[in-house]
Amino acid sequence: MSSKRIAGPEIERLIQLLAKVPGLGPRSARRAALHLIKKKEQLLGPLAHAMADAVDKVRVCSVCGNVDTSDPCMICSDPRRDDSTIVVVEDVSDLWALERAGVQNARFHVLGGTLSPLDGVGPDDLTIAKLVSRVAAGGVAEVIIAVNATIEGQTTAHYITDQLAGMGVKVTRLAHGVPVGGELDYLDEGTLAAALKSRTAF
Amino acid sequence: MSSKRIAGPEIERLIQLLAKVPGLGPRSARRAALHLIKKKEQLLGPLAHAMADAVDKVRVCSVCGNVDTSDPCMICSDPRRDDSTIVVVEDVSDLWALERAGVQNARFHVLGGTLSPLDGVGPDDLTIAKLVSRVAAGGVAEVIIAVNATIEGQTTAHYITDQLAGMGVKVTRLAHGVPVGGELDYLDEGTLAAALKSRTAF
Ligand SMILES: [Zn+2]
Ligand SMILES: [Zn+2]
Repeated sequence: MSSKRIAGPEIERLIQLLAKVPGLGPRSARRAALHLIKKKEQLLGPLAHAMADAVDKVRVCSVCGNVDTSDPCMICSDPRRDDSTIVVVEDVSDLWALERAGVQNARFHVLGGTLSPLDGVGPDDLTIAKLVSRVAAGGVAEVIIAVNATIEGQTTAHYITDQLAGMGVKVTRLAHGVPVGGELDYLDEGTLAAALKSRTAF
Repeated sequence: MSSKRIAGPEIERLIQLLAKVPGLGPRSARRAALHLIKKKEQLLGPLAHAMADAVDKVRVCSVCGNVDTSDPCMICSDPRRDDSTIVVVEDVSDLWALERAGVQNARFHVLGGTLSPLDGVGPDDLTIAKLVSRVAAGGVAEVIIAVNATIEGQTTAHYITDQLAGMGVKVTRLAHGVPVGGELDYLDEGTLAAALKSRTAF
């Protein structure tokens, strides 16, 4: 950001905040702000309203950890979903990516990250205990661990597999298609579909 | 956009609107929405507020055509500006670009586009008459026409020069540094500074 003020503080503040949106930098933020200002009625107003609405209504699903405007979330409260399968993901963005791929009509569970001793992230910092409770409550035949193909992701997968051992549930993981070191969120739908279809037992 | 709904309507609407922001596409919009939702207190809320504030307060400056939260705008009401020079630009984005370059402590005039007979844009669709009035009011020694180096831009520059002929004002244009066919908004500050410094008389 230039330190030179080119407009009133409200516009400067808008540019400053837009620059924090992923995908926009300081220069893009200025262009975006100007575009929004020019389309005040058609875009800026509705966007302001949609954001305020999201602030009011968005919450974390108490069942699965997804974010939505209802709790339980749309996926947890969908009666047509297969209750016997839970797909475990690191982050909501992975859940969204798998849902867009539309390859699994299952339930989900969002871990909220991966085990990372170096960063001080232990099992209690994730929703692993809640996952174990969901499985203990019965009716779950398979847990598909769909974490990123990183060392932390695989460590987390192994930890969860250990926690679920002896509970009579099949634990599988994504297999083909996920590039080593890659992140689910960036994969195309075909790759995600192949990875789910070829999942293997731990 | 996928037609598959992955969350409540408020989140879908937020994604849909974010996808219309320049710099963001449908995929970036989803990532941006999720980031904003996760940073609800630090970013989404403040951004919603800043946007609502901009909707309320932004207006077009009745003097120069800039957009700002005051009318006259910050530049028109700045007593330290040189009243004797008016820099004429096509668009507010060009004004902002020149201001960021910080090379001219003058007044501005935003045309709102360029003459374009094929698109049905004539002199009355731009703020040319208002520019002539500003010059006629006296005190202006020089008008710097800082339009894009496009055919329409140059046609517009010539038209304005004709309109100002005989009014005792020097009309200059940007010279060195502006690539042919290029747009001011994308140039670096050094190029803009050089172009202003080497301006030539029509
Ligand atoms: Zn849920
Ligand atoms: Zn003004």
